[in-house]
Parts: sequence; C-alpha cells; structure tokens
Amino acid sequence: MRSGIEPQPSGQAGMRRANLSLVLRHLQTRGPMSRASVAAEVGLNKATVSSLVAELIERELITEGHVQRQGTVGRPGQLLHVAGGGVVGVGAAVNAAFLAVVARDLAGHTVAERRVAHDIAAAGPVRSVALLGRAVLEVLGTVERQGYDVAGVTVAVPGLVDMHRGMVRVAPNIEWSDLALVDLLQSRLRRPGLVVEVGNDANLGAIAEHACGVAAGTPDLVYLSGETGVGGGIIIDGQLIRGSVGFSGEVGHMPLGDPRLTCGCGRMGCWETVVGLGALFRSAARSPVDDLLDMGIDVDARLALLGRRARDGDPATLAVLDAVGDSLGRGASVLVNLVNPGALVLGGYFGILGWHFSPRVAQGLDQHVIAPDVGGCAVHASTLGFAAPSIGGAIVSLRRVLDDPTLVPLASVAPESATA
Amino acid sequence: MRSGIEPQPSGQAGMRRANLSLVLRHLQTRGPMSRASVAAEVGLNKATVSSLVAELIERELITEGHVQRQGTVGRPGQLLHVAGGGVVGVGAAVNAAFLAVVARDLAGHTVAERRVAHDIAAAGPVRSVALLGRAVLEVLGTVERQGYDVAGVTVAVPGLVDMHRGMVRVAPNIEWSDLALVDLLQSRLRRPGLVVEVGNDANLGAIAEHACGVAAGTPDLVYLSGETGVGGGIIIDGQLIRGSVGFSGEVGHMPLGDPRLTCGCGRMGCWETVVGLGALFRSAARSPVDDLLDMGIDVDARLALLGRRARDGDPATLAVLDAVGDSLGRGASVLVNLVNPGALVLGGYFGILGWHFSPRVAQGLDQHVIAPDVGGCAVHASTLGFAAPSIGGAIVSLRRVLDDPTLVPLASVAPESATA
Repeated sequence: MRSGIEPQPSGQAGMRRANLSLVLRHLQTRGPMSRASVAAEVGLNKATVSSLVAELIERELITEGHVQRQGTVGRPGQLLHVAGGGVVGVGAAVNAAFLAVVARDLAGHTVAERRVAHDIAAAGPVRSVALLGRAVLEVLGTVERQGYDVAGVTVAVPGLVDMHRGMVRVAPNIEWSDLALVDLLQSRLRRPGLVVEVGNDANLGAIAEHACGVAAGTPDLVYLSGETGVGGGIIIDGQLIRGSVGFSGEVGHMPLGDPRLTCGCGRMGCWETVVGLGALFRSAARSPVDDLLDMGIDVDARLALLGRRARDGDPATLAVLDAVGDSLGRGASVLVNLVNPGALVLGGYFGILGWHFSPRVAQGLDQHVIAPDVGGCAVHASTLGFAAPSIGGAIVSLRRVLDDPTLVPLASVAPESATA
Repeated sequence: MRSGIEPQPSGQAGMRRANLSLVLRHLQTRGPMSRASVAAEVGLNKATVSSLVAELIERELITEGHVQRQGTVGRPGQLLHVAGGGVVGVGAAVNAAFLAVVARDLAGHTVAERRVAHDIAAAGPVRSVALLGRAVLEVLGTVERQGYDVAGVTVAVPGLVDMHRGMVRVAPNIEWSDLALVDLLQSRLRRPGLVVEVGNDANLGAIAEHACGVAAGTPDLVYLSGETGVGGGIIIDGQLIRGSVGFSGEVGHMPLGDPRLTCGCGRMGCWETVVGLGALFRSAARSPVDDLLDMGIDVDARLALLGRRARDGDPATLAVLDAVGDSLGRGASVLVNLVNPGALVLGGYFGILGWHFSPRVAQGLDQHVIAPDVGGCAVHASTLGFAAPSIGGAIVSLRRVLDDPTLVPLASVAPESATA
C-alpha cells in the first residue's frame, strides 16, 4: 500500500533526523556522489542538502573525497563518501562449533574480529555466554582504543528467536531453549547503555549476503546456510521476510531427509538429517576418532580436510558429497519454486565446498523447478563462509545509526556519551 | 528502505491524482469515516481533503452516508463510504474444469457472474478462449446495461504467466504453453480500449483472501489452493510475493508426492500427484464411469457427491480423504516453517471439504512445524471456494481506479469515454 504521500515525522527535529538518515542511506546504498547528485536523487533542494551534509561531516559519518570529473562541461564537484572512521556495529554469532565476533564500520570495513572453536551444546548456555561475553569485550576494547563509537551488538543464533524479548525460544542444535540471551549477555558485558539484540543466524546471513555478498543487491534472494543445522533467509524486494512472529526461514525441517534418521529437533526425516554439517561429518568420517569429528578443531580446518580427500578422489568422501549435493538441489528447488528468486546463495559449508555443490544444485534446479530457465535464478557460492551471520549482525547494529545519525556525537563532544 | 521523505509525483496534476488515490484507498481499507478523520489519519489538511472528497463524490467513487454520533461532544459528522454504483472490475478464471467470470464494484459487491463447466485441456486453447470471450462479453453486457464503467479484465490461469507480455508460459494441467492469451482474448472481445491482463490463479486467489476472505487483513498469509493442480500464494506484510520474474508460489511440484506417479508437468512424485483434485477424483472413483470423473458435471456437484459419501461413512472415500489430508498437512508445514504466516487459508477443494481437512492440517502443522505453537498460524477453510481466483482478478482490475481515480469520468461526462 505505497502512496505518493507519506505521513511526516512530527516536528522540525524529527524532520531533520529523517532527512539526515535519507542522505546517509542514499550515499551508503548508491556510492560516492556530489552534493548536487544527492539533491537531485533524493528530491531535496541543494541548500538543505548542503546543511545536512555539513552536519553528517561534523558527526564523522561522511567525508569529502577526490574530485569528480563531470565530462567537459561545468565545474568539477567534490565526491561525498560514507566515512569509515567514526562508528562500528558489532555482530556476534553462536554456532554449534564456534563463537565469532566482528566489528564493521559504515564503509563496510572489518575493524576487529575474533573466532573461538567451542562446542556450545557440550559447554551449556551459561559457560558459552560467558565465553561469548569475553570475546565481545575483547572486540569492544580493540575498537574503542581506536576511537570508534559502538552502535550496538547483535547476536546471531541458530534457532527461533523472540527479538522483542531478547530470548532464544528453541535452538535444537545447540540445545538452548527459552534462554534470556540478551539479559545474560548484558550481565556479562556490564555496559548498561549498550544496545544488545538477538536474531536468527540464517536471517542475518541473508542480510549480509544482500548487503555485501556475491549476489549483493539482488532484490529477491534466497540464502541457504549449511551449518550443524540448515537455515534459510528470504529477501524479497530488498527486505528480509521475518514472518508474523519472526520465525520464518526454517527450511532444515522440510520432510526431505532420511525418514529413518532422528533430527536434533526430535522429529524423523528432517532435511538437515542429510544436508546438515553434523550429518556430513558423521557420514564422511573414516572412524569414530577421525579429525572430522573433533569439535576442538576449527570447523574450517575440518572442511579443508574433507575437501582435500574429495579433491584426491577418495570414493567414499565423493559418494557422501554427491548424496548431499543431490538432496541440496532437491530442497533448494522447493524454495526456488516457491519464491522465484533472482539468486540462490549457498552459505556456510555449502559455500565453502561450493566448487562441488554449485553445479550439482544448478542441476537439481534444472530438474525440479517448473519455471522455464529456473525462473532466472542464478546459483552462487557465498564468499562470506561462516562469517555471514556475524557480519549480518554488525550490519543490523549499524542500522540504528543509519535510521538516526544524531545518535553519533558531534566530533567536538566526548565520544562515549551518546551511543554507549 | 522506507524513509520519512518520498519523492513526490511531478507536477500539480500528479500530486492531485496521488492524493485522490490516497483518500479513496484509505476509505476502502479502513471503512466509513468522516472528512475530519480522513484528514487526521492521512496527514492532509481539512480543506484539501474536502476538495478531494468533492471530486471523488462527483466521480461517483464515494458517497456520503448516515450520521456518525461522536460520543456526546461536538457536532455529528457525515460518514464517507466507498460507493458501489459507478465502476466494476472484471475477473475471469480458467480452471481445468470450468470457466468463470465475475464483476465486482469498489464496495465489494458482486454485480454479475457466469460459470461454465468446460474441459479446457480437451477443448484446446482456441475453443476455450472463444468460450471465455463469450462469457466475458455477457458479463460486460450485464454491467454496462446497469450503467457501470469497466476498469479492466484480469484473467486467472493455473500456470506460469508472463504478465508483461500477457502470455501463459507453462500451464501443464490445462495443457497450454506459450499462449498469447491477452491478444487472443482481445481479438474475441473487440474492445480496443479495454485493459486485459493475465495472472496466476493462486496468486489472485491469495489477493482475494487477503481482501475479503475468512482471514482478510492478516498481514502475513499463505493461501493454498486445491484444484486440478495445487497452487500457493504468499502475502507478506499485505503484499503478494511475485518473485523476480513473477513465477512464485509453485508449491504443487514439491517432491512430497508418490514417487511412482507422473505429474502433469512430466516429473515424478510432485506433491499434486497426491493432493491435486484430479488425483483425489481418480483415487476416490468407484469405477471408470463414476460421476466423480465426468468433466461435464460441475466440479462443485462432484465434490458434493464425494462429501456425501464421506459423511455417510464410506470407508474407501474416507481412506482417500485421510491420505490427502495427511499429505496436505505435511506440505503445508513446509510453507509454515518457511514463511511463518499468521494464517493459512485452505482454498479450492481444500476449503470446500474444509470440515474434513482443516483439523487434519492443523494436526500436521502441530507435528511438523518447529516454531512453538506453530508460530501462531491459524488454519482457515476458505469461504470463497473456486471463486477466489476470479474475485482476485476483479480486485486487481479495480486497482487501476484506486491508483488513479481520475480514470473514472466525472458524472456529467458520457460514461464510456474514459475507462473503456
């Protein structure tokens, strides 16, 4: 129900904030441009844009860069860029096999990161959240020493999340349920003013892919992430689908798996009993003491080992990967038939072993998708690997600043006061 | 990417059109209210609203109704209503077993309708489109004799549709492919100015359910329609998901059917080989000459016969319905896990036999949906039956008038000139 007229935020200050947000988002989405181009493209007059730009520069959210040559006519203009230096968003991810934390600035640069191999289910929520808190504090320390403000922390969790209450409702693969994660983490961080939020990992991964991944900017995009479980994130017209209470994207439990196998959720035959990372390592392990099963070894190293065996032509490893690839293609085709996306991004281990999976998934779509030319859907292996959910968390944390640039203090004011 | 400031349509005339549309849509969505309420809710001043209302009344798009008692304070205000009398949208549906045409006005009243039992696949596209053209002309004649303007005709087809080119790309259950339906129909109608469009039947059915069905107004709604094939329509935040090239909602080909059965699309094991209406009639038929298989008998009459056998406790019929109900619940759970809708509407024959299917589908969701309390999804049997796609077509045809109320001529102008 779009219409030509939108109700305006009330009052002058609200209007100013909305316009600051408009200009900052425009530069972030469209890239560097002159004041005149901003004015023309967002539909505000040049004087207003100049004043908004001056304030955004004072808040260190944008900078003026090198000169743009506008053909041969007219004088050259200074290009405005989103600034990297002032503020970061922090994203954290709880994965069955590790904890990850990343801080990113508005220009999309990674400023600090940590990853710790960790068996979350075995450690239990209390110890795991303590370790997560320590990793977040290390990253906060690093960025604050460099003079950054912190817009907030968003934690990605492989499960159903109640975003409003900051709770994890059900996360079978890490054995968490009804956990007040935000409260627990905040009690570890002891930063009363810091905004901490929680989100579903596949949804945050999809946001990262749409913002800065291999198919960035594709309006309709489906993200499928292979981790211990399998998650999906659906972007329609540039916006993540959350569902009526935020529980969308649960693709791992489609009844497409092996009906004899019990899933982490307690049901039989869920898709992730075949295509989940746990299932892959179990099927491909040569013995119960195979390094593939050692949770103390970083998951990327274990996948590299598996990949070497496959590239060396090990028949047992290849047979396992083929079976997973076929099932992946069948399941992916359900999503492509349903959503008709322009891009399907294979994330997590699906992307890391993308050299094997991408052609098989493309073949599966050809076979099972009813639309001519699979409805124009291109298959991509993610380049973000297991980092996508934490990057998505950092991006979501930064949205607070994009929505209201006045949260970041003016350069003359002490840096801590406004956002933390 | 919503923001407080939207670029305005250029020029005074564009602005006026946008504001006329804003007021008309607001009254249609929110129901009768006073000029003062319209002004307050859409954020325009009272003088502007009065002038817009005057023009909409002159175009016979709204009327002034009875007096609203606003408590005890202030003077009573006249309530503005969307008017029924002036303009209709026409929706037509091509179903494997019948053709249907309906004309609806802005107030949601059915002004005229036709339905003809017809075996589309056997007749072939040319004869079927000729028959469709005749039915549309009959409805046009009826509404025009009553003085209505016609906003357009939208045809619902059970297949993949190229809306921009007015083509049916693939419609396996009626055996149409690459058919220039809009051109063909227009050559039958011989109304050069009349806007004719084509859409997918399940998508149009979902639009009808969201506008005027049993779960109308639910922001996130999944519509599942049991016809010869099975179609899905997904509404997110009040908007239909179309996909990157308009091929979304193809749920009938999920690999959840009987792997030994060939689908109309040529693949094995598609879901609709078990839950499609053709499959139901074939499984439930007592002999090759059972009335259930007679395409000359209206499909509602055949379903009534099947329903009577079930209510009489016929074991064979009940076993067939149970098997379909279980598969329906399993497949529906895939959609509910993926989209987390607030409502699942069972349409087509799923809704007509809803007394049997609704509790079984609810049970299936309980079993297969991972979200607590199935993510708040309520199961509803549609009350629109097989009429949903044609009603959706009529609603979509009327959107042209809601987008630009000036398409409808002022009352003083000859009625044909502006919209036809």
